[in-house]
Amino acid sequence: METKLYDLLDRFYNEMVEIRRYLHQYPELSFKEEHTPAYIADFHKKLGHDVKTNVGRRGVTAVLQGGKPGPVIALRADFDALPIHEQTDLPFRSKVDGVMHACGHDGHTATLLILAKAINALKEKWRGTVVFIHQHAEEYAPGGAVDMIKDGCLDGVDVIFGTHLWATVPHGKIQYKHGPMMAAVDRFEIEIIGQGGHGAMPHLTKDAVVIGSQLVTNMQQLVSRRVDPQEPAVVSVGSFVAQNAFNVIADRAKLTGTVRTFSEDVRSLLEKELETITHATCQGANAEADFTYSRGYPAVVNHEEETAFLADCAYQVPGVTETEEMKPQMGGEDFAYYLKHAKGTFFFTGAQHPNWEKTYPHHHPKFDIDERSMLLAAKVMGKAALEYDN
Amino acid sequence: METKLYDLLDRFYNEMVEIRRYLHQYPELSFKEEHTPAYIADFHKKLGHDVKTNVGRRGVTAVLQGGKPGPVIALRADFDALPIHEQTDLPFRSKVDGVMHACGHDGHTATLLILAKAINALKEKWRGTVVFIHQHAEEYAPGGAVDMIKDGCLDGVDVIFGTHLWATVPHGKIQYKHGPMMAAVDRFEIEIIGQGGHGAMPHLTKDAVVIGSQLVTNMQQLVSRRVDPQEPAVVSVGSFVAQNAFNVIADRAKLTGTVRTFSEDVRSLLEKELETITHATCQGANAEADFTYSRGYPAVVNHEEETAFLADCAYQVPGVTETEEMKPQMGGEDFAYYLKHAKGTFFFTGAQHPNWEKTYPHHHPKFDIDERSMLLAAKVMGKAALEYDN
Amino acid sequence: METKLYDLLDRFYNEMVEIRRYLHQYPELSFKEEHTPAYIADFHKKLGHDVKTNVGRRGVTAVLQGGKPGPVIALRADFDALPIHEQTDLPFRSKVDGVMHACGHDGHTATLLILAKAINALKEKWRGTVVFIHQHAEEYAPGGAVDMIKDGCLDGVDVIFGTHLWATVPHGKIQYKHGPMMAAVDRFEIEIIGQGGHGAMPHLTKDAVVIGSQLVTNMQQLVSRRVDPQEPAVVSVGSFVAQNAFNVIADRAKLTGTVRTFSEDVRSLLEKELETITHATCQGANAEADFTYSRGYPAVVNHEEETAFLADCAYQVPGVTETEEMKPQMGGEDFAYYLKHAKGTFFFTGAQHPNWEKTYPHHHPKFDIDERSMLLAAKVMGKAALEYDN
Amino acid sequence: METKLYDLLDRFYNEMVEIRRYLHQYPELSFKEEHTPAYIADFHKKLGHDVKTNVGRRGVTAVLQGGKPGPVIALRADFDALPIHEQTDLPFRSKVDGVMHACGHDGHTATLLILAKAINALKEKWRGTVVFIHQHAEEYAPGGAVDMIKDGCLDGVDVIFGTHLWATVPHGKIQYKHGPMMAAVDRFEIEIIGQGGHGAMPHLTKDAVVIGSQLVTNMQQLVSRRVDPQEPAVVSVGSFVAQNAFNVIADRAKLTGTVRTFSEDVRSLLEKELETITHATCQGANAEADFTYSRGYPAVVNHEEETAFLADCAYQVPGVTETEEMKPQMGGEDFAYYLKHAKGTFFFTGAQHPNWEKTYPHHHPKFDIDERSMLLAAKVMGKAALEYDN
Repeated sequence: METKLYDLLDRFYNEMVEIRRYLHQYPELSFKEEHTPAYIADFHKKLGHDVKTNVGRRGVTAVLQGGKPGPVIALRADFDALPIHEQTDLPFRSKVDGVMHACGHDGHTATLLILAKAINALKEKWRGTVVFIHQHAEEYAPGGAVDMIKDGCLDGVDVIFGTHLWATVPHGKIQYKHGPMMAAVDRFEIEIIGQGGHGAMPHLTKDAVVIGSQLVTNMQQLVSRRVDPQEPAVVSVGSFVAQNAFNVIADRAKLTGTVRTFSEDVRSLLEKELETITHATCQGANAEADFTYSRGYPAVVNHEEETAFLADCAYQVPGVTETEEMKPQMGGEDFAYYLKHAKGTFFFTGAQHPNWEKTYPHHHPKFDIDERSMLLAAKVMGKAALEYDN
Repeated sequence: METKLYDLLDRFYNEMVEIRRYLHQYPELSFKEEHTPAYIADFHKKLGHDVKTNVGRRGVTAVLQGGKPGPVIALRADFDALPIHEQTDLPFRSKVDGVMHACGHDGHTATLLILAKAINALKEKWRGTVVFIHQHAEEYAPGGAVDMIKDGCLDGVDVIFGTHLWATVPHGKIQYKHGPMMAAVDRFEIEIIGQGGHGAMPHLTKDAVVIGSQLVTNMQQLVSRRVDPQEPAVVSVGSFVAQNAFNVIADRAKLTGTVRTFSEDVRSLLEKELETITHATCQGANAEADFTYSRGYPAVVNHEEETAFLADCAYQVPGVTETEEMKPQMGGEDFAYYLKHAKGTFFFTGAQHPNWEKTYPHHHPKFDIDERSMLLAAKVMGKAALEYDN
Repeated sequence: METKLYDLLDRFYNEMVEIRRYLHQYPELSFKEEHTPAYIADFHKKLGHDVKTNVGRRGVTAVLQGGKPGPVIALRADFDALPIHEQTDLPFRSKVDGVMHACGHDGHTATLLILAKAINALKEKWRGTVVFIHQHAEEYAPGGAVDMIKDGCLDGVDVIFGTHLWATVPHGKIQYKHGPMMAAVDRFEIEIIGQGGHGAMPHLTKDAVVIGSQLVTNMQQLVSRRVDPQEPAVVSVGSFVAQNAFNVIADRAKLTGTVRTFSEDVRSLLEKELETITHATCQGANAEADFTYSRGYPAVVNHEEETAFLADCAYQVPGVTETEEMKPQMGGEDFAYYLKHAKGTFFFTGAQHPNWEKTYPHHHPKFDIDERSMLLAAKVMGKAALEYDN
Repeated sequence: METKLYDLLDRFYNEMVEIRRYLHQYPELSFKEEHTPAYIADFHKKLGHDVKTNVGRRGVTAVLQGGKPGPVIALRADFDALPIHEQTDLPFRSKVDGVMHACGHDGHTATLLILAKAINALKEKWRGTVVFIHQHAEEYAPGGAVDMIKDGCLDGVDVIFGTHLWATVPHGKIQYKHGPMMAAVDRFEIEIIGQGGHGAMPHLTKDAVVIGSQLVTNMQQLVSRRVDPQEPAVVSVGSFVAQNAFNVIADRAKLTGTVRTFSEDVRSLLEKELETITHATCQGANAEADFTYSRGYPAVVNHEEETAFLADCAYQVPGVTETEEMKPQMGGEDFAYYLKHAKGTFFFTGAQHPNWEKTYPHHHPKFDIDERSMLLAAKVMGKAALEYDN
């Protein structure tokens, strides 16, 4: 049946590409997806799957019941796009100004839809159940996964698999990772509340630009001095805004940034220390701060056995030229939530553009993928779904 | 004649107030003044003065020829307003949204017009010539003074006097200052040119927020370590802007600020050291910077003898309850340029609101003056014009 | 033969303790060892081993030729002590003021000597050759290993094993580590060359305390911004000295510190960036710096197969209650050099004091070990030597 | 009588030089003076003055009663030396290793003794009383002045004059200053109390070097942001000591420094803000600090009328080629205390070495003066004593 599955996927490859290119032209922002989930639901309905829409707000689930008893396997693809203005010259470039599938979720969706179609063709002999989870809003915290889980998308599920097409890894390579794979992604906002005044009279002010600058400088110690050097951690301030005339002294400065960690202990430590250093820095200048720390996606921590299983599957898939245990990534993924509720693993499917000079990182306005990676992704997930036995 | 002058001014005081309140309702921004100079020119023309308009772009000069020989005295008032939305509840509040006479130039103009009218009434016995210089664009570098001087407004002038109604000094008090009175006002713009990237991957970036913050922190040394403690100096960064998503690392950060000094040596030192510390800070992070330093108004340096003369005049004016040598101010004034071309002095006329709880600093949206200060200002300048002998 | 080896070691345990306690009383500093190597050489000579002294200056090697053909196995123990004044109340505490075996090298030596005696008793049936490497000067760069290797101690050796008794790991536990295990340890010295002067006249100086402080602050970015968050790295300034009267400004400040890394790329990056940030910081203040970076021991990088082999051996040794892959340690070890010339692995033998309240870290004046750990260390190394087959 | 006084001083000049050179060879440290006060007391006793010794511990006062009624004039000279090893090649260089008259107090004393001798010669016609105050311990806080005043040296005094021979001002020039002339000199000691540890494990420590460095960096804001730019102020850290091995992290760092101000308000502000910023900086790193702030000499604030009087006297003294109002100096002087209890003024007498290439600043091991300056100093003080009328 494995060979049949691969053959079907090969045969449906052109349609997979068409779907991807179609979706690419009509990207939709996180939490604002309308057309895309409708399209997905329609596709599954035509296959006769048991479809639910508006799952956890805008998600779609489709259930395929195999002809034989077996485990309940969930496969997940996300489908939201980004607020980026596409700068490629692809014939199927985005038709929506300022919105772009710049992270490959169009490919994820096409992969999963065609995989569903292929499995559907083998339905009668299929052992167990497959739950296709099409998730909205992966790009924007709090993300769609949380709500879909609350809404029951994992109920009865034995295991979940998911992949990301990864544009900086060559086509043919599958990357897996035991344990921590992607970081917890938190966000902080700090507003320095100083006291403004005339640029020529600093002594009558509490200079929010100076205080904010000192705070950013001080923050560098968090990673360099407070965290165990063996524990990966990042604290970045992405935005520093105190916009004023040149000859005033700022009363406010607004800093927003991100904290990335893998261990919950380090995460809690940094949350606490960041707040401490913020208030202490302000206090040294008789100022104050509003400090908000919002925990985003937790770390993606793959389950050991499922990861070994997936790595083994991938190794055997024709067309996979290399499998590799990757280093953890400091980026985040709300796939993390599924792994807190069910066994499973997340992996990367190499999707580097065949013309390597055109390799642009995810979220870049010229981002593109090697579409053949979708086929490999479908085969690996298909094989895993086929062979998993809990 | 002195007494007559005072009497005339007292008699015209109501008109002075009317003029000020009228102008207050129709404020115009620097270099965009149209109605105001036309109004001024019209007023002087009706008095029969020799009027020139569009002097140095938008300034107005009016010459009154006295009946007797004597010195050529220039008296200056500026007439531009500020991009501030007025928040007073005065009956004559600004009728122009977002523009306000929040620095008292309406009062300066009313003072000078009525003083002109009073002198005009004494014209036949007046010794010498009076040049009324109504200057546009004091609030915005490069200011109107430079161009008016180029256009000849000081030609043949023996001495120049000017005053600022000062809202934080009580009515009745005149402040003079020998030598340096107001600071040189320079402006700098620094753009940190780093390299952006994902907030989770600092090692692939040159973090412009961190570099900019370090630069602001480093800059504090300029005043604390590089400048002679006896020399007043200020370096302030008013604006720090690196506006990005929370999860990126900034490629650029833009800092704008001001340097205030009295001595040309310190001014040059700070210009040089600011550039040095900017480039060195960037270099330490393998980044670069665009550095622009724009010299604005130089320091207002009053002439010794003219200042002593003015102080003496002020002391004798009825209604002046106190004269005082003030400390230098870190604010700037393009009156500085006149003093580089002619002898003269600039002074402050106390204009604190009689209800002291309503004292708001200059450039504040609730700024207001004690209008009686205009009368005193006119008397002091009038007496100086009357008695000056070169 | 394995059982016999264990029995012999059990039988000789009391002597092992005696040796350790004897050596503990007569500690000798790195590169100044005289009595200790003589004692070791004597011990081996009595066993009839082929002994060389002054190997690489002060090291000792002893060769035991087994009765049967087989591989050449090297076992290493270091024997130097530290410039620390012992503060324990042990009956066998150091008799040398200011010198102490505060890192357990006395235990290492006793372990290896008694292991040699036990293997010697099985000599006729022993397969292959054992080279006992007793190394001087592990505590002080450049260390004894480099010279002993140059002097031929590894000639003909097939594999090398070594262990550290580790006082913060419980007795019974063996820790191994594939690949990078202990950090490269580098040292830097920076002398800020400013210009001194009177504390009241900063503008005539280049304040070395301010520059040095800024440098330390800036350095925090090296780890937080320049190094891949996945790569462990530490930059610490241990010493900051600018000793002057309170009312002067320092002309010099001397900073010394350490850099710890595992990857050679990160090591080179930090060496370069540390120098860059040093000179840039000084340049921003028109000062200069003498910068010296001395590479110490490289990272201890265990060989994959030998580590798996050792872990497997340890697992089977009676008395070993737990084996565990440890996290890398930021501390250094010149065992690193042996692993650059021969296959092998280094491991930790738990030696936490049975009364856990007495657990003091290595190099602490109250440091002590659970002596039973020596017996386990001997058994694990003995089993490895017995079973290794290249 | 004025001319007679000058003639006498001219005649005694050689003796003045001899005294100065004698004292120069036998310098004594602050609060350890024995020989010098004995020598001074002896000199005055021979003149028949009413001498008191051990005034305020080690000071000497001598009273000369003139033949006619008049005011009580105090003249002060200090006589202590410095812990500096003289490096001149003068024939009369210091015979005491490590102690040197490197601030000219030998000259002050010689000046005052010979002036006493000259006035003594005019005693019968002298109007009023002269109190010669020879003060110990000017160089070392809390200084000798406080105790001498407590001990009554100013009782009944109408006015006090004092001068400093100043090696960077040309011979012939007298510098006076109305109001604030020399700064208040305070001292602070800060001990950062962190937590030490191994250089490779920063997360287990509170790094006192990093905290101390950050504190020094933060302190730069005190002058640049907290103090009115018109108010001279200096905060300098002279000493930063955290002496450790390169591979540890410091548990303590000790900073000592000085604060210089003229206004009591600024002084109090800086004391408070320095403490605030110290504790806040430590708090940001979960550490603590011992903070000690010791107020030293207050600012020397000359009395207006006495300063004008002295300037006028100086202007008329033959040999004085220039009198000038000087800028305030950031250095301190315990003459400040006398001016809090009596009217008076302090001034500088130019004493630059005639060979200007030999000009070394005060406290330099090659410091020297133009001895002719003593004669001028005596004449100016003498004239002031002669003519002062309260």
